[in-house]
Amino acid sequence: MSKYVYLFGTEKTDGDASMRNLLGGKGANLAEMANLGLPVPAGFTISTEVCTHYYEHGNTYPKELEEQVEAAIREVEKTMQAEFGNPKNPLLFSVRSGARISMPGMMDTVLNLGLNDEICAGLVEKSGNERFCYDLYRRLVQMYGDVVMGLRPEGKEVDPFEQLLEKKKEARGVELDNQLSAEDLKELVQEFKAEIKKRLGKDFPEDPKEQLWGSIGAVFSSWNGNRAVRYREIEGIPHNWGTAVNVQAMAYGNMGDDCATGVAFSRDPSTGENKLYGEFLVNAQGEDVVAGIRTPQPIEELEAIMPEAYAEFVKACNLLEQHYKEIQDLEFTIQHHRLWMLQTRTGKRTAAATVKIVTDMVDEGLIDKATAVKRVSPSSLEHLLHPSFNRSGDEVILGKGLPASPGAATGRVVFHADEAETEASNGEKVILVRLETSPEDIGGMHAAEGILTARGGMTSHAAVVARGMGKCCVAGCGDLRIDYSKDLLTTNGYTVKKGDWISIDGSTGEVMLGQVETQEVTFSEDFIKLMVWADEIRTLGVRTNADTPHDAEVARGFGAQGIGLCRTEHMFFEGDRIKAVREMILSNDEEGRRKALAKIEPMQRQDFEGIFKAMDGLPVTIRLLDPPLHEFVPHETSTQEEMARELGVDVAEIKAKVDSLAEFNPMLGHRGCRLGITYPEIYEMQVQAIIEAAITVTKAGVKAIPEIMIPLVGTVKELQILQEKAREVAGRLIKDSGVNLTYLVGTMIEIPRAALLADQIAEHAEFFSFGTNDLTQMTFGFSRDDAGSFLPEYVAKGILPKDPFQTLDEEGVGQLVSMGTERGRQSRPDLKVGICGEHGGDPDSVRFCHKVGMDYVSCSPFRVPIARLAAAQAVLED
Amino acid sequence: MSKYVYLFGTEKTDGDASMRNLLGGKGANLAEMANLGLPVPAGFTISTEVCTHYYEHGNTYPKELEEQVEAAIREVEKTMQAEFGNPKNPLLFSVRSGARISMPGMMDTVLNLGLNDEICAGLVEKSGNERFCYDLYRRLVQMYGDVVMGLRPEGKEVDPFEQLLEKKKEARGVELDNQLSAEDLKELVQEFKAEIKKRLGKDFPEDPKEQLWGSIGAVFSSWNGNRAVRYREIEGIPHNWGTAVNVQAMAYGNMGDDCATGVAFSRDPSTGENKLYGEFLVNAQGEDVVAGIRTPQPIEELEAIMPEAYAEFVKACNLLEQHYKEIQDLEFTIQHHRLWMLQTRTGKRTAAATVKIVTDMVDEGLIDKATAVKRVSPSSLEHLLHPSFNRSGDEVILGKGLPASPGAATGRVVFHADEAETEASNGEKVILVRLETSPEDIGGMHAAEGILTARGGMTSHAAVVARGMGKCCVAGCGDLRIDYSKDLLTTNGYTVKKGDWISIDGSTGEVMLGQVETQEVTFSEDFIKLMVWADEIRTLGVRTNADTPHDAEVARGFGAQGIGLCRTEHMFFEGDRIKAVREMILSNDEEGRRKALAKIEPMQRQDFEGIFKAMDGLPVTIRLLDPPLHEFVPHETSTQEEMARELGVDVAEIKAKVDSLAEFNPMLGHRGCRLGITYPEIYEMQVQAIIEAAITVTKAGVKAIPEIMIPLVGTVKELQILQEKAREVAGRLIKDSGVNLTYLVGTMIEIPRAALLADQIAEHAEFFSFGTNDLTQMTFGFSRDDAGSFLPEYVAKGILPKDPFQTLDEEGVGQLVSMGTERGRQSRPDLKVGICGEHGGDPDSVRFCHKVGMDYVSCSPFRVPIARLAAAQAVLED
Repeated sequence: MSKYVYLFGTEKTDGDASMRNLLGGKGANLAEMANLGLPVPAGFTISTEVCTHYYEHGNTYPKELEEQVEAAIREVEKTMQAEFGNPKNPLLFSVRSGARISMPGMMDTVLNLGLNDEICAGLVEKSGNERFCYDLYRRLVQMYGDVVMGLRPEGKEVDPFEQLLEKKKEARGVELDNQLSAEDLKELVQEFKAEIKKRLGKDFPEDPKEQLWGSIGAVFSSWNGNRAVRYREIEGIPHNWGTAVNVQAMAYGNMGDDCATGVAFSRDPSTGENKLYGEFLVNAQGEDVVAGIRTPQPIEELEAIMPEAYAEFVKACNLLEQHYKEIQDLEFTIQHHRLWMLQTRTGKRTAAATVKIVTDMVDEGLIDKATAVKRVSPSSLEHLLHPSFNRSGDEVILGKGLPASPGAATGRVVFHADEAETEASNGEKVILVRLETSPEDIGGMHAAEGILTARGGMTSHAAVVARGMGKCCVAGCGDLRIDYSKDLLTTNGYTVKKGDWISIDGSTGEVMLGQVETQEVTFSEDFIKLMVWADEIRTLGVRTNADTPHDAEVARGFGAQGIGLCRTEHMFFEGDRIKAVREMILSNDEEGRRKALAKIEPMQRQDFEGIFKAMDGLPVTIRLLDPPLHEFVPHETSTQEEMARELGVDVAEIKAKVDSLAEFNPMLGHRGCRLGITYPEIYEMQVQAIIEAAITVTKAGVKAIPEIMIPLVGTVKELQILQEKAREVAGRLIKDSGVNLTYLVGTMIEIPRAALLADQIAEHAEFFSFGTNDLTQMTFGFSRDDAGSFLPEYVAKGILPKDPFQTLDEEGVGQLVSMGTERGRQSRPDLKVGICGEHGGDPDSVRFCHKVGMDYVSCSPFRVPIARLAAAQAVLED
Repeated sequence: MSKYVYLFGTEKTDGDASMRNLLGGKGANLAEMANLGLPVPAGFTISTEVCTHYYEHGNTYPKELEEQVEAAIREVEKTMQAEFGNPKNPLLFSVRSGARISMPGMMDTVLNLGLNDEICAGLVEKSGNERFCYDLYRRLVQMYGDVVMGLRPEGKEVDPFEQLLEKKKEARGVELDNQLSAEDLKELVQEFKAEIKKRLGKDFPEDPKEQLWGSIGAVFSSWNGNRAVRYREIEGIPHNWGTAVNVQAMAYGNMGDDCATGVAFSRDPSTGENKLYGEFLVNAQGEDVVAGIRTPQPIEELEAIMPEAYAEFVKACNLLEQHYKEIQDLEFTIQHHRLWMLQTRTGKRTAAATVKIVTDMVDEGLIDKATAVKRVSPSSLEHLLHPSFNRSGDEVILGKGLPASPGAATGRVVFHADEAETEASNGEKVILVRLETSPEDIGGMHAAEGILTARGGMTSHAAVVARGMGKCCVAGCGDLRIDYSKDLLTTNGYTVKKGDWISIDGSTGEVMLGQVETQEVTFSEDFIKLMVWADEIRTLGVRTNADTPHDAEVARGFGAQGIGLCRTEHMFFEGDRIKAVREMILSNDEEGRRKALAKIEPMQRQDFEGIFKAMDGLPVTIRLLDPPLHEFVPHETSTQEEMARELGVDVAEIKAKVDSLAEFNPMLGHRGCRLGITYPEIYEMQVQAIIEAAITVTKAGVKAIPEIMIPLVGTVKELQILQEKAREVAGRLIKDSGVNLTYLVGTMIEIPRAALLADQIAEHAEFFSFGTNDLTQMTFGFSRDDAGSFLPEYVAKGILPKDPFQTLDEEGVGQLVSMGTERGRQSRPDLKVGICGEHGGDPDSVRFCHKVGMDYVSCSPFRVPIARLAAAQAVLED
């Protein structure tokens, strides 16, 4: 005979914590507590197999169930020394759901089962507390009528039970439920029952057994309620897991001043400090704590009021922590000085707390380092790594946009990128506010404390660039009306002028008026300790994407082991060099281009010198020019005219050239190594700048390890031609210098075709770096700049499990990544392989990169610790 | 001892036609003719292995070579009864190159080798024709000085030998070379020699042996001359094949009136008619025919002049044709009534001739049908399938653009698409002339006879759409200056106004003034016969891409077995419906969209009815809406204002909506099934129109076989949702109608991710159609609209062997196509698989599709016969 019912807290407990799949989380933990000898009101769990059976057999139970439940009730009665349905000595039950994984609020609960008029009267006699008993009864009828019998308000009507309750309070001239008398509640019970009869044509069942089975059925049915199904779809919980049902004797904290109820954490869930943290109410029920009618007292104060119960609770906490080796979130009730444990589970806590708890637990010898590393969710570190606001709560909220790049920034408003640069160079803190940003704004974005845009999504230019810079950004704040001509913005009735202070929260998307105090990032000792442990475990390298010596330093401070992506195009925009760049682009022949490039070369060289110094002894992967030239040319007439004057040509000529560079799909246009093929002199200049910089710093005692990366390769020949050219230039310079310098030449794999032909491509590349941003764009056929019009809907509808620009699509893009890695190493076994898309800082994607066998991931500086942790976890999961 | 020298025409011939790789084409055919007993001047071939040895061993010969050459000379002398270098009875040689594959004009030739002063005097005595002898001698010195000794004009100087020749003619007061006397030529020989000595410091070699070896070396060297290397790179001929050298006794057609020389084809190379076709000159050398000093006579007239030689030649022609079973291109010389065959090779001929020849040869029993089918190059059919011009040669050429879509069209110039429609509906023939076209011009493009643009490449909008329509198009004619405001264009000094006649040749790119007579396509009986044979052989189906009943009918006439791609968006532009489409797009809610869609539905239904009728009994694959909505909205202020008036909304609202639809990379934007997901009502309307149309025609006795195709699928869920919806709509309509109608629902595979996940996608698709245009764009990361700025350079530099938008890139994109096919059939073995990109009409790509195991290819109507033939050849190649 199959076993469907598992006792706990009775003479013998059937289950334990390992039986979570069968008994659900709540049931397994109740059994475990009972096994540990803790005082648990007796009860039993109907297993998830019954739920499965219920749905597989047209909503019916296994035939053995009734008998097993009956037997279990007898056992509970024996332990609790009361009888279910016996008016003389009534036992009441609660019925609660409990799935493998907590689905808070998704399924139904019924309390106080086992009351009818006769039994309630008996209970009054036994307890001597009439008001208490009729309140229980009133709650039962209300809850049962709703949950089990399905009495719901119609249309926009208020809940019928609440209507009756309100009416009663009005009639009595009172405001709160607990001001109603026992008699009032007794009347309400009858009124509730009458309402049920009237609306549903059925009577409230007086038979306790009927109540019990009705409630069990309601819980199983609620597993397939709309809310629960939707929740499981979103969370990816299989529908066939099913829920268990916990039937447990009621314990009461509201039977007098020797009773109490409370919740507590075994450690402080916000700081992680190792001390009990929680609150309680004397003479109260659990619901009262939530309702907020009375202010609960801190848990420490329980000691003075009920010293024995408190001591017992502290002991229970310690026992459970030692047992589970995790912070516990506990519910308890004290009934006439006697402690009853109602629930224990792993406590939710802040990221900072988690870090402190796991490192403390290692020190306490509770867990080992590997467990500590496993316990911290890498993405939870995110906001430990960025500045945050000390909010007073009185801030004026100007609007809310998308939390595009986390952090907190405060500064004076400027509306133009060049102004941001000027003000910043004068030592002013500024927030750059734009309708949307463009590559021309890079300098200003860099100079600003933060970026705020009125348009664009999580993958807009502003958002992507800001994340890359680790700069706070709120994007697509639709409430803003920006008037560039007047240098002001209006929003929600406020007008903000140039120079006014605002504060933006890139973690919440909020925009606030004035200067809000920010709190800088400081790493706790615990955090640093944890990172060291992660580094000891992981095998995957972690590099950073950084374009400036400053970013490189920050990232190194965060533990980056090199630069995986240094974009050279950002350097093209800075200061005066954009003029030389434009001169180069607008030249009609190679000679003209070479003349302009000669002006840029020394500036590029200086950039690289700074970066090599910051990364002394670590590899620096530098990507040669990638964006289409159209991004560099002036698009506004005034700038075109200025340009024409400077170059001494006709403005029409400038305009024609700019127009000729426009593309229908610039993402798929004349960019990357295609520029290297058609204008070899550009890459030649860049390679020269890289190698000359490396030579210079080497002479100054710095160890430079340049890795030259050729972007957007789609054919074998492109790479063959360009790497030969690069080696020719580099080889000549190194030979002439007499310096001992080694360098690599490799390529980005970001075109699907390159992944497919990786074996041939690897013949010409010393390393691969997967550019998964572009690879995702092309593999899906999604333009990151445009996908905002449908991608959110795709994720919401579950067409895609996640935004593939944030978490690597293992199923599709991942196939190309593993194929590329495998084929590449087939023809070059020592091929160095990394990733430099935004995915390099996403924990799931980092795990995938480890699994694929990459050598390193590269991510924005602030994500380096996240990647380090994720990489260590990947090893532990193996 | 290795054999390097192969005799022919001597007592024993060493080679034969099968030894083309070793002896080159010319040498192998000379040997074959000798074997057949035809009169070939004796000689020998130095094999290609010597060439290979020559380049692998620092330009030296195998040591055995000299001895073998000496022995061969002895054999030739024996046969020709003359001696090389013997003044009493001199034998002269020609030295010619001969590679495996003909490389016309790329390598060197030296004639009349073996003369010096003494030998020439001897030859005069023997031949009794002094002028003839000194002319040979003069030619030798000139040719040898140039080819072997390297005497070339300096800078812009005229050839030094030509200068001397001119001077001589001037001094003699004559105009033509052949008016010079023997004495003049004798003087020239000495003057030529002196010039060589003066310029090169070396003497012309008097020793015949030295002349011979010098010439042999010159031929081998010319294999690696710049011209030859470049030619091989373009044609894809391996550099290591090498050339053979043919040394052959000279025969002379210019020793008197009983001599002649000529060339002939065994059949008419322009019509294919089975009669000798060629011309000859009495008392002349080969060069004289080319020089054009005298007009050659038709070959038939030779019969009257030299009946025996003629008879012998006719016999030789027949023999060679019977032997090679191919049209022969022959060279011959008659020396004192004696026929000498100098060359035979497969004759080049027009496509029309090829068709006639191969079908005739089958009738004659010379070849079988399979051979006939194999012989015709599918791409050569191209211009049999399009109208062409009957040119007089006097046409005024206004300019030359790219031959973007073949055919010939003549009409009156219009500059606006709507005018093209109006004029065409008045029965006027028009040519639509635009700077470039946009999707808004579709209606006008359809109405016009042909399209001419000033900008854009082979893959511009105009070019792609025109090819799809099978409409003549010249694109990117840069000479045109179009002034829309004045309705005129200027080009090369001409002004063409609206209403003026022009003619455009889409096969050459020429634009001509006025009406040039065109010749319509008619299929010869032979052509039809050949196609029937191809159909008997092929296993691959051939469908067409057609959007209108007219195109469908044309394609059916060309043998299409169904429609593989019917694009619905073109229908959205026609006539008044674009207004309803715009109303739909500009609606702010589903209700508004449904209202507008209800107006479009009956029109779409009518379109489909027409197409189903035209394709009675054949499948019709209809693609649901694909382009981004931005393509449909008005972009000009005036149209926006009109729109605003009609819809009764503010123009600013229209403008804002239009702006909001603009995308950075529309190719990768909100289009295809992404529209179906976000606006399900659009696809719903289209499915309704398709199924209702099918029901209507079925009731009228037509067999409709609709295949509903969902475009741009990249995720499994997209297809799952959309196909379920489509089946729901279709199922309901069919059930309600009571009609017996079957249909399929499938998808395009055009996103790389879809190919990678084809196994899962096939679970929801009854057919796959590879959209290789988009698949190529995304796999390469090339935007077809923008690739013009680098793709031509890529092909020219050999980075890509071919334009991947014309011929499927088997190496890269092909991997995804075969992977997609294989994986798709893994989960659905009866999956129907086809291709509907432009590659469906490209012969190489058709072969690939056959190899991959597709069920059909689909191409533009005019390419259907090409695909049928290529598909048959693919079977024969297996």
